[in-house]
Amino acid sequence: MGGSVITYKERSMAANHDNIRRIAEEIASSRARRLIIIHGGGSFGHPLAKQYRIGEGYYSEAQLIGVSKIHGSMVTLNRMVVEALTAVGVPAMGISPSSFVVAENGRIGSADFGIVERLADKGIIPVLYGDIVLDGAKGFSVISGDQLAARLAIDLKAHKLLFGVDVDGVYTSNPKLAPEARLIERLPISRLRGIFEVGGALTTDVTGGMLGKVSEASMAAEAGVEVLIFNASKPENTYRALKGEGVRGTIIVR
Amino acid sequence: MGGSVITYKERSMAANHDNIRRIAEEIASSRARRLIIIHGGGSFGHPLAKQYRIGEGYYSEAQLIGVSKIHGSMVTLNRMVVEALTAVGVPAMGISPSSFVVAENGRIGSADFGIVERLADKGIIPVLYGDIVLDGAKGFSVISGDQLAARLAIDLKAHKLLFGVDVDGVYTSNPKLAPEARLIERLPISRLRGIFEVGGALTTDVTGGMLGKVSEASMAAEAGVEVLIFNASKPENTYRALKGEGVRGTIIVR
Repeated sequence: MGGSVITYKERSMAANHDNIRRIAEEIASSRARRLIIIHGGGSFGHPLAKQYRIGEGYYSEAQLIGVSKIHGSMVTLNRMVVEALTAVGVPAMGISPSSFVVAENGRIGSADFGIVERLADKGIIPVLYGDIVLDGAKGFSVISGDQLAARLAIDLKAHKLLFGVDVDGVYTSNPKLAPEARLIERLPISRLRGIFEVGGALTTDVTGGMLGKVSEASMAAEAGVEVLIFNASKPENTYRALKGEGVRGTIIVR
Repeated sequence: MGGSVITYKERSMAANHDNIRRIAEEIASSRARRLIIIHGGGSFGHPLAKQYRIGEGYYSEAQLIGVSKIHGSMVTLNRMVVEALTAVGVPAMGISPSSFVVAENGRIGSADFGIVERLADKGIIPVLYGDIVLDGAKGFSVISGDQLAARLAIDLKAHKLLFGVDVDGVYTSNPKLAPEARLIERLPISRLRGIFEVGGALTTDVTGGMLGKVSEASMAAEAGVEVLIFNASKPENTYRALKGEGVRGTIIVR
C-alpha cells in the first residue's frame, strides 16, 4: 500500500481515511489468505526523515529525538491501517520492522521473517511498514516499504507481489505532467537496465517514488515472484488484484 | 513501569496521564543512560486478554481479532509513554516484543535483544511492554512486562532492575486490606520459596500482581541483578531509584 494512496502527500501527517477504509473492505471481500501487507509512510514519514537528516552517520540528541518521532509517526499510521482491517473483521497485527531488522548502508541486512510467516500461517495478516531502523554503517536509516516488500517476497518465496500506487503503473513518462505518457503494461527486467542507464522518464523520480519502486520490484521479479504495479486509489482494483482478476497496471517480468 | 501506575485499573483503557507525564519528567531529570523501559498493560491489556480467552490453544476467527485488538491496545498505551518521554527531550523508541519474541508455554523462548541493547548504547531508550506473542505450544500467549523485564535484565546483564508499582513494595500481607501489613525491606530469595509454598499473603495474588512480579524478580536477583520494588505512584521515587538514592521499597537479594 503506497504512501501516496493511504496519506495525502502534500499535507503533513494527513491520512487518507477513505482509501484506507475502502482498501480494508476490498481485502476483507477478497478473503485473501496468507497475505502480508506492507505500507509506505507518505506524509507520515518523508517530511520528518528529511527534517532530521536521517542517514548521515552522526546523531545529535536532537536527531535521536527525530528517530523517535519518525518511528512514532509511522506507528500511528500503522495503527490506522490495522484498525481499519480489524473493523471489517480481518485479523491483523502491526509488526515493527525496527524491532527486528538491522540495515547496512540503507539496505536490509540481517532479518528473520519467521514470525511474519507464522502469523500469516495462523490467519493473522501481519502489517509492516517503511520504518527507521538501526544501520550498522550509518547509525540509522530509513527502509522503504518497497524495499521491505521485495525482500519479504523473495525471502518467503511469495507467489505475488502487488504494489498499490496512485497511478495506473509505470509510464513512458510522468502521466501527471505529460499527456502523451503511455502505460507500459509488460515491463521485462531486461528493459529496465536500459531505462535506468539511458535516462528518460524513470531516471528522475517524478512519479511519486516510482523509480525506487521499480528497482525493488525488479529484484523480486528476478527471483521469480509475479510482480504487479496497479492503481489502488481506484475502487475495486485491490480486490481484483488480490483475486487474480485482470486489472490495469504494469507487470514486471523476468 | 507497572500497569497499575500508568493506567487506572478499574476503568477500561484509561491511561493515567498524570503519572506517565510525571515519571517521564523524573526520567529526564535523572539523565539516566543505558536505560531500558518496560511497561505493563493495566486496563489496556488484562481485560481484553481475559475477554478473548488467550492462551487456550485453539484460535477462532473471533479470537484472532482479539489477538489483533490486544496488541493494538498495548501499542496505543506504548505510544503514550514514548510520546511523554520525547515531549521532555528524552529520545525513546517503542519496541514491539511480538515482532521478535516467540514464547513456549507462556515463557519467553527464543529472543534476540541485540537491537534493544544497541538502541540503548546509542542513547535512545527502548520502551518495551507486556505483549501478546506467538507461542510454540499455545498459539499465542500474553507475556507480562514483569517476565520481559527480568529476562532482559538477565540477558543483558543489567546492573539494576527497578519495578515501579503502586504500593511501597512487598508486604507481609495486603497493605490495601490489612492495617497490620508491614513492608519487607529486604527479601532474600531463600525466604521466597517458603512464602510461595507455605502460603500467606503472597500466595494469593491480591497485591496487584505482586506474586508474579516477585517470582520474576527473584530470577533476576538469582542471576546477580540488583532488584528493587518501589512505589512509582509517589513523586520523586522514580528519580531517586534511578539515581541510586535511598528510596523506600523492597530489595530482593540473592
